[in-house]
Amino acid sequence: MDDIPFHTAHWLNTDHPLTLADFRGRVLAVEVFQMLCPGCVLNGLPQAQRLAQTFQERDLAVIGLHSVFEHHAGNSRESLAAFLHEWRIRFPVAIDMQGEGLLPQTMAAWGLQGTPSLVLIDRVGRMRARHFGQVADMALGAQVMELIGESSAG
Amino acid sequence: MDDIPFHTAHWLNTDHPLTLADFRGRVLAVEVFQMLCPGCVLNGLPQAQRLAQTFQERDLAVIGLHSVFEHHAGNSRESLAAFLHEWRIRFPVAIDMQGEGLLPQTMAAWGLQGTPSLVLIDRVGRMRARHFGQVADMALGAQVMELIGESSAG
Amino acid sequence: MDDIPFHTAHWLNTDHPLTLADFRGRVLAVEVFQMLCPGCVLNGLPQAQRLAQTFQERDLAVIGLHSVFEHHAGNSRESLAAFLHEWRIRFPVAIDMQGEGLLPQTMAAWGLQGTPSLVLIDRVGRMRARHFGQVADMALGAQVMELIGESSAG
Amino acid sequence: MDDIPFHTAHWLNTDHPLTLADFRGRVLAVEVFQMLCPGCVLNGLPQAQRLAQTFQERDLAVIGLHSVFEHHAGNSRESLAAFLHEWRIRFPVAIDMQGEGLLPQTMAAWGLQGTPSLVLIDRVGRMRARHFGQVADMALGAQVMELIGESSAG
Repeated sequence: MDDIPFHTAHWLNTDHPLTLADFRGRVLAVEVFQMLCPGCVLNGLPQAQRLAQTFQERDLAVIGLHSVFEHHAGNSRESLAAFLHEWRIRFPVAIDMQGEGLLPQTMAAWGLQGTPSLVLIDRVGRMRARHFGQVADMALGAQVMELIGESSAG
Repeated sequence: MDDIPFHTAHWLNTDHPLTLADFRGRVLAVEVFQMLCPGCVLNGLPQAQRLAQTFQERDLAVIGLHSVFEHHAGNSRESLAAFLHEWRIRFPVAIDMQGEGLLPQTMAAWGLQGTPSLVLIDRVGRMRARHFGQVADMALGAQVMELIGESSAG
Repeated sequence: MDDIPFHTAHWLNTDHPLTLADFRGRVLAVEVFQMLCPGCVLNGLPQAQRLAQTFQERDLAVIGLHSVFEHHAGNSRESLAAFLHEWRIRFPVAIDMQGEGLLPQTMAAWGLQGTPSLVLIDRVGRMRARHFGQVADMALGAQVMELIGESSAG
Repeated sequence: MDDIPFHTAHWLNTDHPLTLADFRGRVLAVEVFQMLCPGCVLNGLPQAQRLAQTFQERDLAVIGLHSVFEHHAGNSRESLAAFLHEWRIRFPVAIDMQGEGLLPQTMAAWGLQGTPSLVLIDRVGRMRARHFGQVADMALGAQVMELIGESSAG
């Protein structure tokens, strides 16, 4: 299996950079967001926080990916750090690496349509879902549990 | 395994009475409610409707159990039928059999604390959860999926 | 000025029947509802309770009018009494008088389109607003205050 | 009557700087906020938008005052401009002038406790309300209408 591309420029809420391999053996939920995107603030990020509170850490990891494709000047690293502090977001957040084009590199490589997007990666490192916009809590809880129930033997 | 007691006086939203055995092989969610209980109307019943919409019928069955223990005169069968019609509740609803004591018979036998209560019964007919009051959609979706993932071989 | 017709069969939450004349000198908000109407339970009645809590009693009176035009068997006086108790509705509630036609008499005389309807009557007894369905709290608060600000000299 | 102090460094959503005197004759609602304050984003600013939509422009003017007292680096003018664009905030927004102390000058002069604060100034330029935190829509609609009903003769 080929590895999923994951290009990060910086990390917040963690004292060392992470790779997707660090989460192997667990299900991983990646909340792809922009701090100035209303749907991310109102729906995506609070749902990611509920994921982190609902499931056990040994079963599910939750991280954020700040994928800025508009208003770059208003989305500085300092702004994001203050935003995470004020909104009480504790899980690790990566800043997606800017590339040559409009979209940052990871967002482009993953073929995402915009923010918020919730990406689910299974225990053996395969991307299993890319939810753009809103997904209901009940359906998401069921889907995450289904992935948790799978073997990590691959 | 002994069968779970289930005493019903009438059924609505179905053309014939049902037994718990009819649901064997599937997970069964029983929403125990009173039509005049605000928590049932605002939280319990809408959540039961979301369960019915979120999961496949072959995996999960959803029914209601109208367990009246107060305001009996205001909870007639005619009132309940009109209530189900107006609130667009389509799943089968049983009326719990009144007994000698305060509580109706099924509610008493199941040891429930009040309404709303959501009871989950697994594919082989064992009671696995009794949630009194509110339970979050995400946690409930996960729990139902966990039961769905179990074998029906018992 | 002719009096507004007001035909009531019974009253709850008051120890004696009331007439519209009893409210002269104050603004009167009449929440016209059916206990089995979801929009009444979810929006109309909670808003009427907020009206009663927000304004002073000397400025605004709030009452309910139970105007049943469907499911008569499921809308007994006993059901309504239990409903008001469970939903903590404390303001006086009149039961609209059934007439020859489909609609109860007051509802028909007032030309209402359905439930919930919020009717505002000014300090001198003139009907000033008939809101069918939802009205926003902010706009309603402003409208009620505008009527409160008018002279009761007529 | 002494004028209310009003020290602004920049303006957005308007092509020229404004003074409080520009609003004389109308009621003025000033939403004092920080773009990284959750209560401002979730409650204060949406309510200010509802004020602007509910009342007539000739009766009520609505403006924002960005009063930053923490996370200065994350609250640049560029960030604020992008924030206003993304959240569809159309009313004029002033940036409160930084002073010697912790609090920006207008916020300090007005004696505000934090953000969000909603300040109401009447038709003749007197400060009439300083709501810190949440205020209910219905009560606010009533209060604004009461001020609108006052004479602008002073």
